[in-house]
Amino acid sequence: MVDLSEDELVAAFARMSDESPPGVKVGIGDDAAVVESGGGDLVLTTDAMVEGVHFERRDFSARDLGYKAMVVSVSDIAAMAASPRFALVSLVLPKDVTTGWVVELYGGMRDACNEYALALVGGDLSRGEGVTIAATVTGAVVPGRAVLRAGARSGDRIVVTGWLGAAAAGRALLESGTPKDLALAGSRQLIAAFCRPAARVGEAQVLASAGATSMMDVSDGLAKDLTRLCEASGVGARLSLSEVPVAEGSSLDLALGGGEDYELVATISSAGVSAATAAMKEQFGVPLTEVGEVVDGSGLVAVEADGSELPLESRGWDHFA
Amino acid sequence: MVDLSEDELVAAFARMSDESPPGVKVGIGDDAAVVESGGGDLVLTTDAMVEGVHFERRDFSARDLGYKAMVVSVSDIAAMAASPRFALVSLVLPKDVTTGWVVELYGGMRDACNEYALALVGGDLSRGEGVTIAATVTGAVVPGRAVLRAGARSGDRIVVTGWLGAAAAGRALLESGTPKDLALAGSRQLIAAFCRPAARVGEAQVLASAGATSMMDVSDGLAKDLTRLCEASGVGARLSLSEVPVAEGSSLDLALGGGEDYELVATISSAGVSAATAAMKEQFGVPLTEVGEVVDGSGLVAVEADGSELPLESRGWDHFA
Repeated sequence: MVDLSEDELVAAFARMSDESPPGVKVGIGDDAAVVESGGGDLVLTTDAMVEGVHFERRDFSARDLGYKAMVVSVSDIAAMAASPRFALVSLVLPKDVTTGWVVELYGGMRDACNEYALALVGGDLSRGEGVTIAATVTGAVVPGRAVLRAGARSGDRIVVTGWLGAAAAGRALLESGTPKDLALAGSRQLIAAFCRPAARVGEAQVLASAGATSMMDVSDGLAKDLTRLCEASGVGARLSLSEVPVAEGSSLDLALGGGEDYELVATISSAGVSAATAAMKEQFGVPLTEVGEVVDGSGLVAVEADGSELPLESRGWDHFA
Repeated sequence: MVDLSEDELVAAFARMSDESPPGVKVGIGDDAAVVESGGGDLVLTTDAMVEGVHFERRDFSARDLGYKAMVVSVSDIAAMAASPRFALVSLVLPKDVTTGWVVELYGGMRDACNEYALALVGGDLSRGEGVTIAATVTGAVVPGRAVLRAGARSGDRIVVTGWLGAAAAGRALLESGTPKDLALAGSRQLIAAFCRPAARVGEAQVLASAGATSMMDVSDGLAKDLTRLCEASGVGARLSLSEVPVAEGSSLDLALGGGEDYELVATISSAGVSAATAAMKEQFGVPLTEVGEVVDGSGLVAVEADGSELPLESRGWDHFA
């Protein structure tokens, strides 16, 4: 049980925080935080992780959970090609969590803040039935330079960063009862992809610089997210199933429908693909894979290795929706 | 049961939103919102309302609940003397809420946005055990003009806006089982203070203009919040109990310890009190009451009507903490 009051926990968190992160004029502890707005546009997102829905407490160390809760929102900022700046966290905690667990959770949030150059400037702590962590993250972007879901044009190539399906495979391993510390190395990697994902902040900026016309993060599986991107852009897409970069130990099903990979899907010219691929490999060691092309019309068409084509939804992917 | 998917609800909300509120470049529906940061400092706050902790669903219309969830965060922005600008809402909904209820909840949020000139630019929708609404609100303030909790100086007068204790009395009426529609006019007013409170945005700016040296909103009762203000400022306070503006139908106990009134407590010079009192009455019809003075040292001393003094905590107020 948490044996500290909200005021005591807030004070403990404030002590654990940097004295004065850049741009923060008033941090944790007042009615609200005050930060320098900087010159560019302000990018804003919020995402909640709910116990029993997005995670089971037994599957996560408190540190990983805090880390992931931040990354999920940072990934949305990345997907706009913006730079993360400030974070606020609304935390709902049940009676059965220990102070040590909460401090570790906060430590994980701070790990993510350090990793992504983010300042945690405020929050809110409530009692509740289960653990809920709602993280709001702001970002900065040069006006007019945010890369939206809308913007894909017929003829653009469709690219994805990294490998897909790892997080869903890791989640499945945990749900099947595989103990984290006994899992084989390959399984541990899948579990880590689910429990402590990365946000593609720098990679998104490479794609933006190379002229990406639209971009989003892959949080609900490539099939669903690419569909959203196409709808926002008013276009269709041909997706080459054999080109989808499936993570080792995962499957095409999980790559298309599993979600929570937090990779990026973007549309870009052929020349842009070459430039972005080289820059991303050099700067981040992350592969960029071309998986299809944008076409006029609407809907996703799946192209099999043998060249045959079918609407993606008729292959049964819609049950992931 | 909600019979719409997250995408469908988000689309419905987007349709209900203004086409293009001022300053919003990308609103609901992309990975993140993009807004103009404006010239001033950025003020950020987040607050969650959790079912079973902050409210029972039977006590609130969905519309009032949505309204209050926004006001609670707007009040924090007000307490910095900032102007509310943008809002994001993380919503956790159980299976037993209807689509109509959710649409009304969203309507209440929009009511608050209209009332406080706020643009709702993003959100997140999750399934969960109970209703949780975490609202993040940003505000703008001229650099250096935010009024913090720290800043009270010995000799300053302590003032509060409006009346205290109404919300706690209203909550008590609801908890005692008074049906809202049968309650007497006076009781209905107390219940409204709890279910649909106001944030003192303009009033805070009057206090700031009149030279308030410190300010915060009264969300946990005057005793606890004034203690926090004094701790942040490194001062003590003498509080004249007979001067505390107790709402009709409430009690001094609830004014000091009840919370959720969202009035303001501020410290200011005597000359500032006169100026702010006149301006606030003229512009908002809201009374400003002097309830004590800032002194050197620490802690709150309660001054009784007969002039006798006692540390406030020894009167038993600490059980509200």
